Amino acid sequence: MKENITRKILKSHLVEGNMIAGEEISIKIDQTLTQDATGTMAYLSFEALGLPRVRTEVSVSYIDHNTLQTGFENADDHAFLQTIAAKYGIHCSRPGNGICHQVHSERFAVPGKTLLGSDSHTPTSSALGMIAIGAGGMSVAMAMAGQPFPLVMPEVINVRLTGQLRAGVAAKDIILELLRRMTVKNGVGKVIEYTGPGVETLSIPERCTITNMGAELGVTTSIFPSDKLTYEFMKSQCREVDWTELKADDDAEYDGLIEINLDELDAMVAKPHMPDKVIKVKEASDVKVTQVFIGSCTNSSYSDLAKAAIILDGKFVHPDVSLCIAPGSRQVFEMIARDGILQKLISAGARILESACGPCIGIGQSPQSGGVSLRTNNRNFIGRSGTADGQIYLASPEVAAASAITGVITDPRDLDGFNVEKLKEVKESEERIIDDRMIQAPVENTEDIVVRRGPNIRPLPVRDEMEDEIGGKVLLKVGDDITTDDIMPAGSKILPLRSNVPAISQYVFNGIDTAFAQRAKENNGGIVVGGVNYGQGSSREHAALAPMYLGVKAILAKSFARIHHDNLINYGILPLRFKDQSDYDNISQDDVLVIENAKDQLRNGEFIIINKTKNAKIEAYATLSDRQKDVLLDGGQLNYIKKLL
Amino acid sequence: MKENITRKILKSHLVEGNMIAGEEISIKIDQTLTQDATGTMAYLSFEALGLPRVRTEVSVSYIDHNTLQTGFENADDHAFLQTIAAKYGIHCSRPGNGICHQVHSERFAVPGKTLLGSDSHTPTSSALGMIAIGAGGMSVAMAMAGQPFPLVMPEVINVRLTGQLRAGVAAKDIILELLRRMTVKNGVGKVIEYTGPGVETLSIPERCTITNMGAELGVTTSIFPSDKLTYEFMKSQCREVDWTELKADDDAEYDGLIEINLDELDAMVAKPHMPDKVIKVKEASDVKVTQVFIGSCTNSSYSDLAKAAIILDGKFVHPDVSLCIAPGSRQVFEMIARDGILQKLISAGARILESACGPCIGIGQSPQSGGVSLRTNNRNFIGRSGTADGQIYLASPEVAAASAITGVITDPRDLDGFNVEKLKEVKESEERIIDDRMIQAPVENTEDIVVRRGPNIRPLPVRDEMEDEIGGKVLLKVGDDITTDDIMPAGSKILPLRSNVPAISQYVFNGIDTAFAQRAKENNGGIVVGGVNYGQGSSREHAALAPMYLGVKAILAKSFARIHHDNLINYGILPLRFKDQSDYDNISQDDVLVIENAKDQLRNGEFIIINKTKNAKIEAYATLSDRQKDVLLDGGQLNYIKKLL
Repeated sequence: MKENITRKILKSHLVEGNMIAGEEISIKIDQTLTQDATGTMAYLSFEALGLPRVRTEVSVSYIDHNTLQTGFENADDHAFLQTIAAKYGIHCSRPGNGICHQVHSERFAVPGKTLLGSDSHTPTSSALGMIAIGAGGMSVAMAMAGQPFPLVMPEVINVRLTGQLRAGVAAKDIILELLRRMTVKNGVGKVIEYTGPGVETLSIPERCTITNMGAELGVTTSIFPSDKLTYEFMKSQCREVDWTELKADDDAEYDGLIEINLDELDAMVAKPHMPDKVIKVKEASDVKVTQVFIGSCTNSSYSDLAKAAIILDGKFVHPDVSLCIAPGSRQVFEMIARDGILQKLISAGARILESACGPCIGIGQSPQSGGVSLRTNNRNFIGRSGTADGQIYLASPEVAAASAITGVITDPRDLDGFNVEKLKEVKESEERIIDDRMIQAPVENTEDIVVRRGPNIRPLPVRDEMEDEIGGKVLLKVGDDITTDDIMPAGSKILPLRSNVPAISQYVFNGIDTAFAQRAKENNGGIVVGGVNYGQGSSREHAALAPMYLGVKAILAKSFARIHHDNLINYGILPLRFKDQSDYDNISQDDVLVIENAKDQLRNGEFIIINKTKNAKIEAYATLSDRQKDVLLDGGQLNYIKKLL
Repeated sequence: MKENITRKILKSHLVEGNMIAGEEISIKIDQTLTQDATGTMAYLSFEALGLPRVRTEVSVSYIDHNTLQTGFENADDHAFLQTIAAKYGIHCSRPGNGICHQVHSERFAVPGKTLLGSDSHTPTSSALGMIAIGAGGMSVAMAMAGQPFPLVMPEVINVRLTGQLRAGVAAKDIILELLRRMTVKNGVGKVIEYTGPGVETLSIPERCTITNMGAELGVTTSIFPSDKLTYEFMKSQCREVDWTELKADDDAEYDGLIEINLDELDAMVAKPHMPDKVIKVKEASDVKVTQVFIGSCTNSSYSDLAKAAIILDGKFVHPDVSLCIAPGSRQVFEMIARDGILQKLISAGARILESACGPCIGIGQSPQSGGVSLRTNNRNFIGRSGTADGQIYLASPEVAAASAITGVITDPRDLDGFNVEKLKEVKESEERIIDDRMIQAPVENTEDIVVRRGPNIRPLPVRDEMEDEIGGKVLLKVGDDITTDDIMPAGSKILPLRSNVPAISQYVFNGIDTAFAQRAKENNGGIVVGGVNYGQGSSREHAALAPMYLGVKAILAKSFARIHHDNLINYGILPLRFKDQSDYDNISQDDVLVIENAKDQLRNGEFIIINKTKNAKIEAYATLSDRQKDVLLDGGQLNYIKKLL
């Protein structure tokens, strides 16, 4: 069989299962990454396994989310993460060193390897021809313990790129175009593999923008071949020794084909409040903006900021606009400082933020009430900016820079007096500043290292074994495309509690129903009913862990997003799907549901749920491997693995 | 009479009163400044007066405190401040343009003029030979309305500087030495005037460091002559046209003399939790630090950061230290970017923060629990960093940079392999980048300007006329040196509520007694009992305004800090002092106090307070001018001035 890249890498890492789309396989994980908002729980999980050291080739703990430090909590988390990384042989990228995906692509990503990261945008590094997958922190802990990572063998979709982007049209527009076509719903169970002559027209950072935001499609990952450009990028990072060529066999087979002619693409923008609400920039040119943000793991490379600087050079930010720019990594920051790009940005009126995730996840720079914010990041879910009625649009750095000048959403090709062809001259710098001193490297002797646990570091809650009768009130009924931001909000006020489950659980579903946590507690837990694509978005396991802490026993939904489905299982919450979706309409909040003989039903994978309030029966099912059933019976992944080890 | 500079400027601005120390005078105010955390209330007060435009020569509204934007509130405040500035002929320095005092000294300070600012560190600009005074927002509103500013005619203390600082000893050490000698208690009612041959050895930014932190002495202001260095500084700012020479007459008279020989000074550090707990750095060399912050209005000039960069060049931040650096202004930021200084700082592992107040006032970068943070700012009050048990030390940028490398508090002269004489080579850049585009200038036609009032902008509460019987429970009894941070905490969680008095009043005395607000409401207000120097520190009028909103009628204390005393009067709270300080010991929380015939007693300035619970009489007095008595009788400054206009 003529193999595609995805199957080649999976095959070389296969531990169990048959590589048939839809069947569970498990693969060896070479590398892991965590970020601080998911990392503390991941390391508490790893620690609970009792191993002396990680069993991966490379594990990196990044501190990039909670860097505002609006109380002692963030700094306590940082100290915990630095010391526990030292204790277990993990690299620790200190605050200020940059965003995990940007830094990982620069300093660690290796073609042909596998990477599991507790952040949904982990696929960014797949731009270098590796299989990088997002997962919950518990899954990453298991990978650090050397356990193979179980996943559903994906379909591999060939996205064939032809032609070349015109000046002013960006890599961001390729992924926005894909989101327009596929929406956020249709990527589950798929990997996207980019092929065609358009590939070699895209730099590594451009490829990273595309693989990064593949997460919004819901795909398992997105991958580019490892080619000459990959070699040159890795050489500029002094890492050419890790490079291998990786390409699909001629006439490799795929499970689907999407064609995009880059010549025909226009500058695009995603409207509030979903990344797939994509229109052409020209169709949004009447929208006034109050804020522009250039940065995030999607668009914060050297060339992203260099392009913004070319547009902003000699111009000035509109009086009604606050322009914020955050370089993606310390490497990028130091290089733009060296090359005069930073001075141009400051001169144009930009507010320079620390090299971190920041505004993308509502950690600072929340827009004014009702304000329109145009951002280069990947998500514009309602409320995620920290402003409940903020109107977030997503676009490329080029569109962002142009709009910052005019005060309305602007195609850079329409900018007065700007020769858009100048953008074509921007290249990634070949003289990179290689300096890993902000990455604390693992050491050999770790006995004397004491892990620092501030008062914000609370023990990991664990569920008991599954009971034979499961039930309770319907605590909440929600619609389609509920995100993990809806379930467990982030932002600068709630994120600092990520290491403290009892405290953070008070905010579950806070944006939808502030009484949820209280109701869950009063009813000793219960069940949540959802629609299609329940749990899309961020990989945050707190969207399972905190409901588990509140006693949620099962989610009954029309369908689930991949990572969240895994997270629910990891924390012992039953992920049930309606057999007949019309049953969704016959359930109301406060209905009492019961699943009798739950263990037997789980073993069969088929469920009869009795709605005691409506005196009705609901047929449901769960798409679970035998392993996943055992995990649920044991009350979660930690109990399951502890038994195994 | 041979006049000193202070008296010369006061004389040229005198509107009412005799210039006899201790008597109330009032002076014409030429310039005002506000910052965002105090500005929204100041502009609401100004607006309530119904004038079409400010009546000052220059008024500037700076946005430098609440720049984290952890919710919609900050950005709403910014939009309000930008639009109301435009409406009333006020300059508005947008977020990112820098810290008010740094920018004002660069772009607006003029020798011989008067400046009133709603920030306690307004005296910074007095380094250029002006009388710059901190006040509450209400006082600044009155100045904007063209009202003369009433103040107690100060004593003028001559601080005579001889000799020259040794390399590694900084301007910061001069003011720390003064704090060591005078403490935070002994500056009330005084102005410090710097004289002697040491003056001409100090650059304008060095003088700014000294005048800035004069606020911690409690003085009304601190002033330097306007000399050749002042001229050169203003010329580099393209403002030499505004320069005039200003010096004390030969043999000018002063009310006191303090001599400091700069040759003999050492590097100093203020220990937690008061700026006057000053020791030599060498005596603190066993203290491990977890965080270092270089920045704030005290130490964030070009030469401050250049000196830090010389020390950090080629070195790297200690693994256990988080080093944060925030340039003081956009001018400084752009210049250090241009001159390669910024790259050196990034390369040394510094986290670069936005040009704003930031960590100094607990807006981000709170240290880890119990962590030692060494900072170049001016205050280390308990809890102000945002971490209740944070241990904050204050020192110069040179000490801060050296300590960031070693991980312990370090005198730069003791730094291995560092030639401390190199610090002597650092000069302020003469090629300044002059660019005021981030300062929105006043316009002529303002009729069409609509002030944007987001939901966080709430009306200014106003007290009714004073009642004839005043009384209530003692809601709280506190000790000496209570700061306005104690009364009305700041930090990134509470500061965003500055425009919303009903919301922020819930946090009054929150660090001392979280039940205070609730108790005040349940008792329909009452009285607070304090010790010596009540209300020192920040000028924040919310420390009067919010207690007023909660129904606090009087503060009965041993003595008051100057600005807070004014703020209490501005908001109609009686500032009463014990005649016999031992009566303090006989009052307990929850005692019921009554002042009968309060209006008559106020007119006399002498009070009999009946402690109904203890069945005792307390004699008290208030140091009030006739004007201040009228203000109190009217229920506050706004009522009083409205009647006048």
